[in-house]
Amino acid sequence: MSFTDLPPLPERVTVREVGPRDGFQNEPEAIPAADKIRLIDALTRTGLPRVEVASFVRPDVIPQLSDAAEVLAGISIPDEVATAVLVPNQRGLEGALGYADRIDDVIVFLSASESHNLANINRPVADSLATVEQLLPQIAQAGLRPLASIATSFGCPYEGHVPAQRVYELAEAMAAAGAREISFGDTTGMANPRQVREFYAGALERLAGIELTAHFHNTRGQGLANALAALETGVTSFESSFGELGGCPVPPGSTGNIATEDLVSMLHEMGVQTGVDLEALLAVSREVQSVLGRPLGSHLLTAGPVIWNS
Amino acid sequence: MSFTDLPPLPERVTVREVGPRDGFQNEPEAIPAADKIRLIDALTRTGLPRVEVASFVRPDVIPQLSDAAEVLAGISIPDEVATAVLVPNQRGLEGALGYADRIDDVIVFLSASESHNLANINRPVADSLATVEQLLPQIAQAGLRPLASIATSFGCPYEGHVPAQRVYELAEAMAAAGAREISFGDTTGMANPRQVREFYAGALERLAGIELTAHFHNTRGQGLANALAALETGVTSFESSFGELGGCPVPPGSTGNIATEDLVSMLHEMGVQTGVDLEALLAVSREVQSVLGRPLGSHLLTAGPVIWNS
Repeated sequence: MSFTDLPPLPERVTVREVGPRDGFQNEPEAIPAADKIRLIDALTRTGLPRVEVASFVRPDVIPQLSDAAEVLAGISIPDEVATAVLVPNQRGLEGALGYADRIDDVIVFLSASESHNLANINRPVADSLATVEQLLPQIAQAGLRPLASIATSFGCPYEGHVPAQRVYELAEAMAAAGAREISFGDTTGMANPRQVREFYAGALERLAGIELTAHFHNTRGQGLANALAALETGVTSFESSFGELGGCPVPPGSTGNIATEDLVSMLHEMGVQTGVDLEALLAVSREVQSVLGRPLGSHLLTAGPVIWNS
Repeated sequence: MSFTDLPPLPERVTVREVGPRDGFQNEPEAIPAADKIRLIDALTRTGLPRVEVASFVRPDVIPQLSDAAEVLAGISIPDEVATAVLVPNQRGLEGALGYADRIDDVIVFLSASESHNLANINRPVADSLATVEQLLPQIAQAGLRPLASIATSFGCPYEGHVPAQRVYELAEAMAAAGAREISFGDTTGMANPRQVREFYAGALERLAGIELTAHFHNTRGQGLANALAALETGVTSFESSFGELGGCPVPPGSTGNIATEDLVSMLHEMGVQTGVDLEALLAVSREVQSVLGRPLGSHLLTAGPVIWNS
């Protein structure tokens, strides 16, 4: 084997910042809407092309995101940035469509494993899929881009192994119902790079024409290694969270999402462009660290970018 | 590009645990020799094939390792485990050779960048190289395995870019002087996976017959991604530190070495064997965490191994 046998890397990838939804949702205390608006406005001025800004979920279940309407009304997003909102059901979609002029993408979701879907939204996967299949066409009809997210795509903390075949079938059903992009989540950081290669090689073949997004967690320190493996397999769309906010803390105390600044730093250092101004992004991560009043897990927040000429 | 174009992974790699030297050296307070002996004895019973156990350095410069003789006299190492000792100079080598019956490998070192070598050992690189070239044959003559370690191989926190050509030339000189294994250190976590590929592809070509070892730091969260890139390029020898101990905290507060348990977990999950009993290793990491009385950076210590069937 020689270096020339190694797979080429893409020139450019697309990163969606999920912190304002996935991150803020997992904070023990709700962040004031004014802080969220300021942080989202700042994030959308760092060159990030996509930001998930809110979700329309039951306020009694996730009070941290009960101010979605206030946030959506308050933010001021540059035209070139696509905003995404997560919706769990018909009621959530209707909430989101009330702000259709401020939203680009609407994300529906389910888990690939029965036990995680039951634990997360108290429904069998088949019921969730039926709901999602009803929502996706309505999103397209409203002129918005229909997205789907599949949790526990690489393993389930309750069931263990999740067959790739099962995940592909769910993705195909959602693609048939109109999903233009499908994000596969490694919800509790069980994926490894070999599995990621095999999974995305199969997914890219079976789901041609659908944008396939990689959403990794750094639970076991392998988040960026998995991102590299996905990149090598042909994935060019990623999700991550500024400051390393959010993600599923299973087992308790674990870190969640890969940090956007850590991902962007690795990509830029490899010559893969993202459009993100890393210093501007770090300034927003420092700001959210200050809002939350505790040190966050992002490596770049401590180490800073690589400086090649001092 | 398809999955079949991706490089194969090796079936097995060799991991050297460097925590008892690199880790213990970086603790603000010296760890008592009895604790070191207990931890080293436990590490060498986890299936780790190689452990760096001590260094013979000036006690006024690195008091944390001034008990090298006591540690070497006290440890009880299984025959199949290779112990390594680091020596900076002739005096250090003589100290180590006093325990030649308890040592397998002796490591000499320098930095690839002038300013790091000056900052670290207050000598120009050429002087360090001359010393190393005198030490390596003596190590072989004593019946021990001569190893060399090159710090800042992938970048220098003072100078920035370190040309691979420069690192190769130093490595070739040390190989010519008898080094059987050369470890390339990413001392302050500046490497990226593309650079790692290119570096090791060149090194494997130019240094045929020498064991080439990868020593990555997780300063910017890319440690395991760099390990993956090295693995894909043909590297099968790695260094890491249990608990994520040690490594160079530049910039201040940064994490250092990749954690052995995080590396081993990734390798095992990919089907790459190490011989290490991960649960046994985690028990030793919990033990050192308890000795040090603070939470360590290892991800596996918090998250635990992946459980595929619950």
